[in-house]
Amino acid sequence: MNVLISEVGPRDGLQSIARIMSTEAKKIWIDKAVAAGFTEIEVGSFVPAKVLPQLADTAEIVAYAAGIPGLTVAALIPNARGAANALAAGAHKITLPLSCSESHSLANLRRTHAQVLEDARIIAQMIRELPEGQRPHFEGSLSTAFGCTIEGVVPQAKVVELAEALMEAGCDEVGLADTTGYADPAAVRSMIRAIWGAVGKEALTGIHVHNTRGLGLANVLAAYDVGLTTFDSSLGGVGGCPFAPGASGNIVTEDLVFMFEAMGVSTGIDLDALFAVRNYVQAQLGDEPLYGFTPLAGLPLGFVPATQQSTSNEGALA
Amino acid sequence: MNVLISEVGPRDGLQSIARIMSTEAKKIWIDKAVAAGFTEIEVGSFVPAKVLPQLADTAEIVAYAAGIPGLTVAALIPNARGAANALAAGAHKITLPLSCSESHSLANLRRTHAQVLEDARIIAQMIRELPEGQRPHFEGSLSTAFGCTIEGVVPQAKVVELAEALMEAGCDEVGLADTTGYADPAAVRSMIRAIWGAVGKEALTGIHVHNTRGLGLANVLAAYDVGLTTFDSSLGGVGGCPFAPGASGNIVTEDLVFMFEAMGVSTGIDLDALFAVRNYVQAQLGDEPLYGFTPLAGLPLGFVPATQQSTSNEGALA
Repeated sequence: MNVLISEVGPRDGLQSIARIMSTEAKKIWIDKAVAAGFTEIEVGSFVPAKVLPQLADTAEIVAYAAGIPGLTVAALIPNARGAANALAAGAHKITLPLSCSESHSLANLRRTHAQVLEDARIIAQMIRELPEGQRPHFEGSLSTAFGCTIEGVVPQAKVVELAEALMEAGCDEVGLADTTGYADPAAVRSMIRAIWGAVGKEALTGIHVHNTRGLGLANVLAAYDVGLTTFDSSLGGVGGCPFAPGASGNIVTEDLVFMFEAMGVSTGIDLDALFAVRNYVQAQLGDEPLYGFTPLAGLPLGFVPATQQSTSNEGALA
Repeated sequence: MNVLISEVGPRDGLQSIARIMSTEAKKIWIDKAVAAGFTEIEVGSFVPAKVLPQLADTAEIVAYAAGIPGLTVAALIPNARGAANALAAGAHKITLPLSCSESHSLANLRRTHAQVLEDARIIAQMIRELPEGQRPHFEGSLSTAFGCTIEGVVPQAKVVELAEALMEAGCDEVGLADTTGYADPAAVRSMIRAIWGAVGKEALTGIHVHNTRGLGLANVLAAYDVGLTTFDSSLGGVGGCPFAPGASGNIVTEDLVFMFEAMGVSTGIDLDALFAVRNYVQAQLGDEPLYGFTPLAGLPLGFVPATQQSTSNEGALA
């Protein structure tokens, strides 16, 4: 496997739509995704049920998924309380979002940067107190890293400063998130290099981009070209962008996997099995729209997945 | 201007939909596009009216557009007869498609490679017989260069061989066209380098990609990274892909321009004026769907176009 596709549909996708998927259906989705080759899935978020009723069963889903061999079970945590619940449920990876735009952080989480960083320190300590082998991977996610709908431009220097602060607070890694779909390929490359310069390459390996303005896969390509290896995406782009009908918030897993496999970059995911997962999820979501081009167009005639290509990633710049 | 966005909507877009746009509306579209900053527009195709009634007024449109200062008027020509009509109408650039898949060429044009190449020689001679200053730029377009729905994979060596043959036949330049939406970023980079190796960099500067599987902008980025500078696109992605509802055949001009401008790569096109062109065309096309994300999401808060950015194209690999 050359890149890791981290499926976030059960969390980022489902939290964005009103319809509540049954716990049983979520478990089947996860089973089918694992069968298709996914090795990391963000299955939920430890937020109060009254805030996101769609994810009220996250603890049960995490516990279930943690029983699946070879699967890294990821969960979002808004704060230390959420982290405690995630640890109790047995999550393998927990992600604490820090909105690089402080006005966005205050508007959406009612928390300052200092408060989020203090939580990061508390969570890191909680993890250190766990026995070896039970400690989850702790990621600090730099959300609105490429701009914010309240502040507009977020200075690169601020993002770099917050990446350093998250690592100093005890995160194992930081992640880049284009929450608002403001990123472009040049900004992605520049931001990755700037953060690497401050915290090192091992401390930033993944990115979460949105497709709000259609640049999602181009931004992923830009990140891959400079060396990132983990990419978040949502099956069927579940969770459309409210202010842009037809525009998916998340990038579409099916198109992302197709792009890499066509390039000769192995994802470990079988595209036909992935389309079957899509069909299952579509059936569960009823009239909720799914996005993506490849499932509709089908695979090219004579398509050869990465592992069966004679030359891998021919012509790449990386 | 760092890159040239060649608008093909009036040709490639309109030929793909049943509705016939009035000659007057096409002229207004072209006027508005020029006002927005476009310097090259493919305004039609010199095919028999019975084949493409949507483009029956191509000669009139070419003659009209040729009167607009600073605009390069491009037209598609299926054969020598079409070329003669294009020259008579005053086209500045004529493009002869050669389908790299011979089965595709026979199925769609009922012509062998040898027949198309013979036409290329005849057309080149017609151009040479024109007085200096009246000679259009003659492009041979390598269509289905990345694969074909009949043959499947088209060997890179075959595409390179046909690029050489077109240049030997007298074309000023060849163009790459992913007619079927089979391309991926690695294939794009590899193909460009292979063709450059055979005919030189000056002989290949542009690419025409489709968004059939959602990789359109990623493929453009790949082509830009290795050094191509001309990119075809269609306003609103006019002309949806028949077998993939919601999937645009052509890449969307609005998203393409946004990507480059955000990257600090100047297109010479004003995005707000471009959105106005879109609104005009949408009004003319009635319920015909337009595609694209950026017009729906709007520009990012604090967005700065390329020419107003302090650093141009920061972080690019090229």
